[in-house]
Amino acid sequence: MTLMSEARSGISDVIIEVAKVEGIEPEKLRKKVVEGRITIPLNPIHSPEPLGIGEGLRVKVNANIGTSPDHKDIDEEIQKAKVALKYGSEAVMDLSVGGDLDEIRRKLIKAVNKPFGTVPIYQAGIVAARKSAVVDMSEDDMFSSFERHAKDGVDFVVAHCGITLESVSRLKKQKRILDLVSRGGSFHTAWILHNQKENPLYENYDYLLEIAQKYDLTLSLGDGMRSGCIYDANDRAKIQELLIIGELVERAREKGVSTIVEGPGHVPLNIIESNIKIMKSATKNAPYYVLGPLVTDIAPGYDHIVSAIGGAIAGYAGADFLCYVTPSEHLSLPTVEDVKEGVIAARIAAHSADLARGIGWDRDIQMAKARRDLNWEEMFKLVLDPEKAKKYREKRKPKDEELCSMCGDLCAIKLPRKYLRNEGE
Amino acid sequence: MTLMSEARSGISDVIIEVAKVEGIEPEKLRKKVVEGRITIPLNPIHSPEPLGIGEGLRVKVNANIGTSPDHKDIDEEIQKAKVALKYGSEAVMDLSVGGDLDEIRRKLIKAVNKPFGTVPIYQAGIVAARKSAVVDMSEDDMFSSFERHAKDGVDFVVAHCGITLESVSRLKKQKRILDLVSRGGSFHTAWILHNQKENPLYENYDYLLEIAQKYDLTLSLGDGMRSGCIYDANDRAKIQELLIIGELVERAREKGVSTIVEGPGHVPLNIIESNIKIMKSATKNAPYYVLGPLVTDIAPGYDHIVSAIGGAIAGYAGADFLCYVTPSEHLSLPTVEDVKEGVIAARIAAHSADLARGIGWDRDIQMAKARRDLNWEEMFKLVLDPEKAKKYREKRKPKDEELCSMCGDLCAIKLPRKYLRNEGE
Repeated sequence: MTLMSEARSGISDVIIEVAKVEGIEPEKLRKKVVEGRITIPLNPIHSPEPLGIGEGLRVKVNANIGTSPDHKDIDEEIQKAKVALKYGSEAVMDLSVGGDLDEIRRKLIKAVNKPFGTVPIYQAGIVAARKSAVVDMSEDDMFSSFERHAKDGVDFVVAHCGITLESVSRLKKQKRILDLVSRGGSFHTAWILHNQKENPLYENYDYLLEIAQKYDLTLSLGDGMRSGCIYDANDRAKIQELLIIGELVERAREKGVSTIVEGPGHVPLNIIESNIKIMKSATKNAPYYVLGPLVTDIAPGYDHIVSAIGGAIAGYAGADFLCYVTPSEHLSLPTVEDVKEGVIAARIAAHSADLARGIGWDRDIQMAKARRDLNWEEMFKLVLDPEKAKKYREKRKPKDEELCSMCGDLCAIKLPRKYLRNEGE
Repeated sequence: MTLMSEARSGISDVIIEVAKVEGIEPEKLRKKVVEGRITIPLNPIHSPEPLGIGEGLRVKVNANIGTSPDHKDIDEEIQKAKVALKYGSEAVMDLSVGGDLDEIRRKLIKAVNKPFGTVPIYQAGIVAARKSAVVDMSEDDMFSSFERHAKDGVDFVVAHCGITLESVSRLKKQKRILDLVSRGGSFHTAWILHNQKENPLYENYDYLLEIAQKYDLTLSLGDGMRSGCIYDANDRAKIQELLIIGELVERAREKGVSTIVEGPGHVPLNIIESNIKIMKSATKNAPYYVLGPLVTDIAPGYDHIVSAIGGAIAGYAGADFLCYVTPSEHLSLPTVEDVKEGVIAARIAAHSADLARGIGWDRDIQMAKARRDLNWEEMFKLVLDPEKAKKYREKRKPKDEELCSMCGDLCAIKLPRKYLRNEGE
């Protein structure tokens, strides 16, 4: 029985645990799980810390890691996973496409005690490409890759079921600047066009649901049509894919299979909200997992900042799960340090969105009080990255240990204290 | 005659120049300058490149630099100014409070060919503090500091005229967590409470306007009550100051004196828009210059990212001028590298806001086309920081020079090309 089916008959321990962490009523959470508004990706084979993703909960952050054909160092990827978790990533996805994919995935799952996701179609495509070409994947290659990942304990898998003959035809008419930037989306599109056949993951979606049921595998319905530049955002190709995904979400719910839906991509900030709202309508409020959104195309090297802007706006508008973007996005495979920077930028975005929705204020209020009291020790306990904050303070030590080297004894907090609060200097 | 008075009688060369840069009709610009909706800070003694700030124009960025009592290295500050301009800051402010303030200011003005701003009250306060205490500044110390800066060619000055007996009394009733974080605001508040007298810059505002008229000095009506933590945002103390400033803006316009109004501060992202709208109403649409806004308090070391989120939202909501925040904010005086990071984060915010308002799309479209064509040379011409982007690409060189080390030959852009566009691989 899946967690979703189980929720229909009552409140399980997992529901109680997630409700406690989020500070909401277990019964409220149970109902939203039943309705598919909240997903708890949890494959019993892996059994990670339960994590709720969806309506009304704290906005969550995922870090994508994984090898590439040009750079395949398993130990480094494990290091990335650890650093991502240390700095507040609530989930990790292995997007490896280089080296021994089974070995990498299995080692990473062991290292990650939070929900772990993969994109099984990569493995199917790569195995085919190593023999001849991605477009030579068989239908069996595809589905057996999903089952293989589920058996290893993967909690959620990306399935690009919305890339179909219909949406690809709409993509062609769309005349985008950048047709596709989703790796999985490009695999399926090439496959459909080359073989002149429907996407098996769509055509035999019921089989995918069977696998998902068997392992309680959450389907993250992938954003193959996500815009790769702001010009292409929210276009007909993307919305077409979303309409198809909306139908598939409802079919999954009927079978007790949990879903998440994936979103942009590059989107100018004025149309992020409409993207989120239309997604929530089209899927009857499935949890929304967004990459970025990136609000401009011209800042490679700083795309973690570009994404933090879009992610904060998206989270406030109703996105539930932010996929981080690192500073090396669009340029090279990220390093461990890039992963850290990406996670922190995404956590800032998620937390800012939470605050705007009235969630998570305690820590900011404690921080403000510590700052008022010039209590540096307390401040360093409360900040997202104590090491970096300390490093900055130490870089230019203040003459007076109570103050900082920015204003010194002209500190705006200290100066008016005795006049406003009758406290001595 | 001031630029604003001159605009009443016709279109000057400066108006033509700014209109051309912004791509708008000179007559439209002239009218907005007359109405005080757009300000061009330009002291003829300095005569910088004319820069329009205000309604309907591109969002501009300012970099604050300057020494502190703990760290006073003039050459380093000049280096910061140069780096700020190189990476797209459209104005520079000298906030020096350590060392020989006259010497620093004069050297910096020579190094900066864009609008240059200062906070004259710092010098008045510091001179008094070096003798006895900030609260011992005389009225004459204050005004003569403004004239001294104007004579040196300063284009715009911060004047905290909204810190008055009335607004300070409201601050006391507000019971903030963090009373004040504005250095100038704290000087005036301490002065008012200690001397039990009205702020001279408010009481004798007409005299300040005379100085401003004489030198065509733009008044940046300072945000002494800006919130130092998100809990205190948009509170009664702040709005009281804003109401006072709104009246002063109108009095300045009557005398042909240009104004800018300063804003937050720390503000949760859901109330940034209301902050901007109420400011625009209270000042009859004066140009709005915001610091941040910072959308959470818990990320020192990353406050350039925190501010980029707030700045982008503010710019889209109508803020005209973003003051950058560096990663060292709240921790130490910034280094040259911090200044660079701060300027780029603020430029990302400003540009994202511009895009959302339909401005500045050409560069992003060119970038998207270069990316589609995997034309790295062209991409590096278009990005905000070519050196950093190249560094990231080189760090992990791709095996195939056309691609990058993220996906290698599984590139989502290249793979489906031959199927979608009948182009060879």
